[in-house]
Amino acid sequence: MQLGLIGLGKMGGNMRERIRRAGHTVVGYDRNPDLADVHSLAELVSSLEGPRVVWVMVPAGAPTQTVIDELGDLLEAGDTVVDGGNSRWTDDEKHAEELAAKGIGFVDAGVSGGVWGLENGYALMVGGDAENIAKVQPVFDALKPEGDFGFVHAGKVGAGHFSKMVHNGIEYAMMQAYAEGWELLEKVDSVTDVREVFRSWQEGTVIRSWLLDLAVNALDEDEHLDKLRGYAQDSGEGRWTVEAAIDHAVPLPAITASLFARFASRQDDSPQMKMIAALRNQFGGHAVESAK
Amino acid sequence: MQLGLIGLGKMGGNMRERIRRAGHTVVGYDRNPDLADVHSLAELVSSLEGPRVVWVMVPAGAPTQTVIDELGDLLEAGDTVVDGGNSRWTDDEKHAEELAAKGIGFVDAGVSGGVWGLENGYALMVGGDAENIAKVQPVFDALKPEGDFGFVHAGKVGAGHFSKMVHNGIEYAMMQAYAEGWELLEKVDSVTDVREVFRSWQEGTVIRSWLLDLAVNALDEDEHLDKLRGYAQDSGEGRWTVEAAIDHAVPLPAITASLFARFASRQDDSPQMKMIAALRNQFGGHAVESAK
Amino acid sequence: MQLGLIGLGKMGGNMRERIRRAGHTVVGYDRNPDLADVHSLAELVSSLEGPRVVWVMVPAGAPTQTVIDELGDLLEAGDTVVDGGNSRWTDDEKHAEELAAKGIGFVDAGVSGGVWGLENGYALMVGGDAENIAKVQPVFDALKPEGDFGFVHAGKVGAGHFSKMVHNGIEYAMMQAYAEGWELLEKVDSVTDVREVFRSWQEGTVIRSWLLDLAVNALDEDEHLDKLRGYAQDSGEGRWTVEAAIDHAVPLPAITASLFARFASRQDDSPQMKMIAALRNQFGGHAVESAK
Amino acid sequence: MQLGLIGLGKMGGNMRERIRRAGHTVVGYDRNPDLADVHSLAELVSSLEGPRVVWVMVPAGAPTQTVIDELGDLLEAGDTVVDGGNSRWTDDEKHAEELAAKGIGFVDAGVSGGVWGLENGYALMVGGDAENIAKVQPVFDALKPEGDFGFVHAGKVGAGHFSKMVHNGIEYAMMQAYAEGWELLEKVDSVTDVREVFRSWQEGTVIRSWLLDLAVNALDEDEHLDKLRGYAQDSGEGRWTVEAAIDHAVPLPAITASLFARFASRQDDSPQMKMIAALRNQFGGHAVESAK
Repeated sequence: MQLGLIGLGKMGGNMRERIRRAGHTVVGYDRNPDLADVHSLAELVSSLEGPRVVWVMVPAGAPTQTVIDELGDLLEAGDTVVDGGNSRWTDDEKHAEELAAKGIGFVDAGVSGGVWGLENGYALMVGGDAENIAKVQPVFDALKPEGDFGFVHAGKVGAGHFSKMVHNGIEYAMMQAYAEGWELLEKVDSVTDVREVFRSWQEGTVIRSWLLDLAVNALDEDEHLDKLRGYAQDSGEGRWTVEAAIDHAVPLPAITASLFARFASRQDDSPQMKMIAALRNQFGGHAVESAK
Repeated sequence: MQLGLIGLGKMGGNMRERIRRAGHTVVGYDRNPDLADVHSLAELVSSLEGPRVVWVMVPAGAPTQTVIDELGDLLEAGDTVVDGGNSRWTDDEKHAEELAAKGIGFVDAGVSGGVWGLENGYALMVGGDAENIAKVQPVFDALKPEGDFGFVHAGKVGAGHFSKMVHNGIEYAMMQAYAEGWELLEKVDSVTDVREVFRSWQEGTVIRSWLLDLAVNALDEDEHLDKLRGYAQDSGEGRWTVEAAIDHAVPLPAITASLFARFASRQDDSPQMKMIAALRNQFGGHAVESAK
Repeated sequence: MQLGLIGLGKMGGNMRERIRRAGHTVVGYDRNPDLADVHSLAELVSSLEGPRVVWVMVPAGAPTQTVIDELGDLLEAGDTVVDGGNSRWTDDEKHAEELAAKGIGFVDAGVSGGVWGLENGYALMVGGDAENIAKVQPVFDALKPEGDFGFVHAGKVGAGHFSKMVHNGIEYAMMQAYAEGWELLEKVDSVTDVREVFRSWQEGTVIRSWLLDLAVNALDEDEHLDKLRGYAQDSGEGRWTVEAAIDHAVPLPAITASLFARFASRQDDSPQMKMIAALRNQFGGHAVESAK
Repeated sequence: MQLGLIGLGKMGGNMRERIRRAGHTVVGYDRNPDLADVHSLAELVSSLEGPRVVWVMVPAGAPTQTVIDELGDLLEAGDTVVDGGNSRWTDDEKHAEELAAKGIGFVDAGVSGGVWGLENGYALMVGGDAENIAKVQPVFDALKPEGDFGFVHAGKVGAGHFSKMVHNGIEYAMMQAYAEGWELLEKVDSVTDVREVFRSWQEGTVIRSWLLDLAVNALDEDEHLDKLRGYAQDSGEGRWTVEAAIDHAVPLPAITASLFARFASRQDDSPQMKMIAALRNQFGGHAVESAK
């Protein structure tokens, strides 16, 4: 089938390649002309035969909104837009309604796979009407991993991004779990080879996982991670997961702790701990350290 | 080789079977005569040719201490004791010293594998002197999974149990991660098939793991886990992990949150939340609910 | 001075009384005619001499929006609206702009004091232009506690509600602190009189506070809080505090833990702990409990 | 009455002064001869008329054990030892038994008050037999604050230190509550005077407390705490509180979060966040920062 693909960065570029390897035609657009097959959205749309399927793979928020607005003007009734970026699930219903007013279908797709997706396939969680999803299915089949898993029609519009968001929230806490265990093992004198402990866990344990395999890779490159700073970004989905949990009164202690640990990792000095130090000094005369 | 094995419960019984399948001789003792090959520790010791290897697989604490005391009297210099139970790592050095005074070697072995170990093998984390470990290696090789992983000489005496304890701490937080994500997905209307979302995650995602596979098994048996009460025991290692972290001033927010969630799950009513309700009533006149 | 006061519930009614005791004229409106001095907003507005000050004390969200919309139609340039309810700070700027378009001033006021406010005074945190605040100052002076504290011009529009929201977030964690300590003391055999321990803390300790005094009151009414269910509502500000922290990448572990403890207190059974129980059963054959 | 007081540091020295002001005789010993009234424990004991009361005010652990051992040899049946230091409650029963074997009484006393105790009095939580406590009561009365509160006979031996320990756990979470709120307020543009917000909270709010007063003092000295490093020690009681909670399966999320925040504040770089950064790089190609 034919696919229009908008956004050819680290993720989009590899996805174009994987879809092409499966024998489909991909017309790609990117603001960077060196990456693009066509040089405007209008050209992209006109180069596809109807009914068209256009996959949007640009940053969440304003960039996605802009592209969807333009596609609303360019596409025709019967066409379908897939938002495969990291949009917040709350944007999906709005986008679906805007496009539905013009007879254009909408599917939201959460995509997992990172730099490994080109070779291993991308896990896909999609939301929307079955009719719209069916139009995109050949592309989903090209992108997904071989095997029985890696694709799900999760529910209504928004369910794809919501499921991907929760996936990332779980990911935060799993990473934090390994990270906490690793730090504790590194602190104890009796355990003389933490890397080999991690390596051994890859079979027969309850905690074997792909993330564990990656942790072993990382330790093979830098046994004590001495080259790295303990500084971790967060990309939005973790925050949204906590916000969604608050909306639904769901306690999320481990995921939230993982998010907060990242926030703290990015502070050169902790304002709240200044207050703790100040209070200890006030009531107990405890010594404080001066700011550097 | 010959092995004396003390404790033939759920774990020990399966381990005897797996070691025998590998062609070794196992003489098993258990307080339950229906399970035992011999009917006293003395008989077990006398039935083994020296230098003997005796594996202790009984509950941590007093039961293990009792067995080790008796073995100290029965065994001879050059023999080796393996503690494969869930002993706290702080007991290991004490046991090693007691036995060393009589020339008896000691190895601590953390064993993971649960009900799957008989077929899939047991992951083993061992601590102690290389010389002592070498004497047990054929048994370790029989127990461990096929493949390159699943066995590690983690360090000095205590390092095996310490590594297994941290493994369990990580396990707590990973389970909590999936559990939090599952509850949130179940709460959201747009996601209409949470079980299929979990199933799809088994390939291509960042969070694929053996625990995820087990979660899918559980959901296949009971899609919304309606048959279960949200009540979770903890077996000691989680508590010890947090205590070890406190000893070393390592922050462990996700693992500790996971432990506390289990504590709370076992309370019919929460005393601390009674106090919260009482305070809200005191300052704001907020309504309270009566105890049932 | 004259004040129009909209909303005469538990808070508003007492505030009317306190302002009148200070010698001011209050014209009160409420949907409940038994509470009201006038029977429509139009009547309220027409009964005040200009420039008018109207204090809105109705639930946050739609009710407040409705009242502000109506006041925008009824009031005149030079009048001032105070939102003293529990509005989210993000609503304040919108309300201020809507009213400013008609020349009407806006002040947001966070009000603390609960059922004690009538006698002890209400702590007030206000946001907005100094010029608008000055018009309301006599009312603020009537409401605030005697003494040097209890009133602050916290900053721009929104700063009053934001400060009150953070106040409530702090309140959540302080309550949780006492509640956790109380539960632990109640669990320990050696401490035979927990209520007297709490009572003694009211002088000379680092943790003496008004909330502690209230805890002693509560324990005097019901020594072990046996009559209460451990069930705690949350009123919105705690959630918003965590959401604001996420927006600003501020780690808020104690306040968030306090919020999540309330969420959990309201669940008859914990879905996430069902998943923990299911996973323990899957890998370890651990017994589960059946749902009641 | 006469009191022997061992340990004349920051706390002990001020306590001697306060007891003397109440008209009692205090014979003080310290390893530092410049502080001491007598120059050996033997001299201290011989200078007191029987039945003697000796108050031990030295660091917990080995120093306290040493002093109690020596007092066991020097004192006589009918004398009483008070441990007013920060001993772990688990030490108290052992000390009581050792002394009881010689007919010597034992009382454990948790003491709160810090640098303010000399003028304001010390809050006292004591454990032990009523008979022994009665012998020390005049000293307790001298030390405690004026007013109705500040002294409690909390229960059996150990109950004094246990109550003081929980007091400190509560203190950790209350400090963390204010600290989190303060950091969030400082981050928000609309709130232009955070110090005045804190100051205003001192009357009429739910969160007024002595710690809040101290926070205002600290902000008056350094409005944004710019001079301080966000580095906070912990003194043992917080750790023991969490350990006691784990022993009793009591969830303690806010207090534990507060302890972990202090641990993290003392790390120049976070090992666990290195692992998070490494994993993000492995699966997503996300950029890492190099260690400084």
